[in-house]
Amino acid sequence: MERFDEVFGSDFMQLAMIQDKIVPVEELEPVYLDRGIFFGDGVYEVLRSYGGKIFALDEHLQRFANSLSAVEITGVDIDLIRSRVLKAFDAAGIANAKIYFHVTRGSQARDRVWDAKLKPNFFLTVTELGDNTREKTEGVAVSTHPDWRWKRCDIKSLNLLANVLASADAAKKGCGEAILVNEAGLITEGAGSAFFAIRGKTLQTAPLTANILPSITRQYAIEAGGNVGLKLVEESLTPEQAAGSDELFIAVTTRDIVPVVKFDGQVIADGKPGKYTKLLGREFRSFTV
Amino acid sequence: MERFDEVFGSDFMQLAMIQDKIVPVEELEPVYLDRGIFFGDGVYEVLRSYGGKIFALDEHLQRFANSLSAVEITGVDIDLIRSRVLKAFDAAGIANAKIYFHVTRGSQARDRVWDAKLKPNFFLTVTELGDNTREKTEGVAVSTHPDWRWKRCDIKSLNLLANVLASADAAKKGCGEAILVNEAGLITEGAGSAFFAIRGKTLQTAPLTANILPSITRQYAIEAGGNVGLKLVEESLTPEQAAGSDELFIAVTTRDIVPVVKFDGQVIADGKPGKYTKLLGREFRSFTV
Repeated sequence: MERFDEVFGSDFMQLAMIQDKIVPVEELEPVYLDRGIFFGDGVYEVLRSYGGKIFALDEHLQRFANSLSAVEITGVDIDLIRSRVLKAFDAAGIANAKIYFHVTRGSQARDRVWDAKLKPNFFLTVTELGDNTREKTEGVAVSTHPDWRWKRCDIKSLNLLANVLASADAAKKGCGEAILVNEAGLITEGAGSAFFAIRGKTLQTAPLTANILPSITRQYAIEAGGNVGLKLVEESLTPEQAAGSDELFIAVTTRDIVPVVKFDGQVIADGKPGKYTKLLGREFRSFTV
Repeated sequence: MERFDEVFGSDFMQLAMIQDKIVPVEELEPVYLDRGIFFGDGVYEVLRSYGGKIFALDEHLQRFANSLSAVEITGVDIDLIRSRVLKAFDAAGIANAKIYFHVTRGSQARDRVWDAKLKPNFFLTVTELGDNTREKTEGVAVSTHPDWRWKRCDIKSLNLLANVLASADAAKKGCGEAILVNEAGLITEGAGSAFFAIRGKTLQTAPLTANILPSITRQYAIEAGGNVGLKLVEESLTPEQAAGSDELFIAVTTRDIVPVVKFDGQVIADGKPGKYTKLLGREFRSFTV
């Protein structure tokens, strides 16, 4: 634990309370003053491994560096982050692991304007991924939700309450993902995934803008699409266009390519994962070995 | 500390890492798995006291209850929150105190969909407020920033990164507040305040919508405006209209009524706090005694 005066500086904070308990400022652990919790002032990544091998580590670290830079969190050595990821992954010894990590701007008495001397906080977890063969084989249902997120979804930040609320709404409806629809009536992406439609011989998804996360799985899905002869169209879909597509799928690191067989209660084609989606899934998995 | 298996449930989380240190899951304090930090999945309030008396406690608790309800955090007893606020305020013994508190949905292994059995986490701080007579006497400069916030700013949530980035931008420009401008080119509010213009005998501010926090100080400023003979107009302003106003001010719990004398570098009227703003400040302070 750091000395509290390094964290609190010359501020006048007098006491804290955790649940029912009053805690003197001197005894408060800095994690309680993490700007991550006060403001979501931090950025994160989620990686996974396949059979003991981390997939797309460089791309994730590059995106992480971009996120840090976009929110002006400085003094984070990406090579140090890489070594921590590898150290934790080795220590966990899990073949199919999900590795989550975040960096926040640091701990200080709550103030929107940050102290330039703050040291960032790093936190990481390694989790064993459950098997998702069933959702890949049978497909999932999805439901739409208004896209309430902020206007810089290109930054992978800890401000995820809109995603949480949309995901909970989808779960209540028995759906495996929420598909977000903006004020113009266009689909942006999933609450935690990229969203794709296959229409004829085209693979369609929203273009990368400030409202879309530059998903790494999206990039690999696009590459896989090219390999199986699909033409890429980067244009936003309406929910009506989505529901009328030949095939739909979502793409996300922890689940990779998951077929969507129902959209807001409407069955897609024959209600089974489509042939191109299956081809794409196979192609994608070839990248991971 | 709660038992870790109550927090982690049947999840497969294997290990965590804090900075460079690997921490077994069993030893991890639940605060590290607070959904507040993973997602900003929580809501907050900021209260203040004047001369040993907490101002507008009921209104703040009512708004807090509304925020909890909007994000579906259940099982929080508002009377218990009230008693904690009073207990901490008493213990601190500060006449002019800022009381911050938040409730998050609870601690669990990271998953967007929450566990229905989660127990919310409460955290509070009491801070001695510095004297802000000078900014009230001399006024502050403000600068505009794009409003990047999410679409439910009527909820006082922990998703505040857009506010943080806007505030930092304003501070860099030597300004005391960032005034947020939406995609339609209209001012919504300050990054941490309500924003008002006085034009002739009217007091103008944005109407309350899903994009505006129902500020309690805003409500009292409107009441004060009525008391000094100003007609309320709830209509959004453009930056041009703001800069051409007779008087401008911001309203926020911790600073109450602060005159704005410069807007994006443009001097407002004669560059001094306006007469109605001064009257409003006096009127407002009469509410607090």
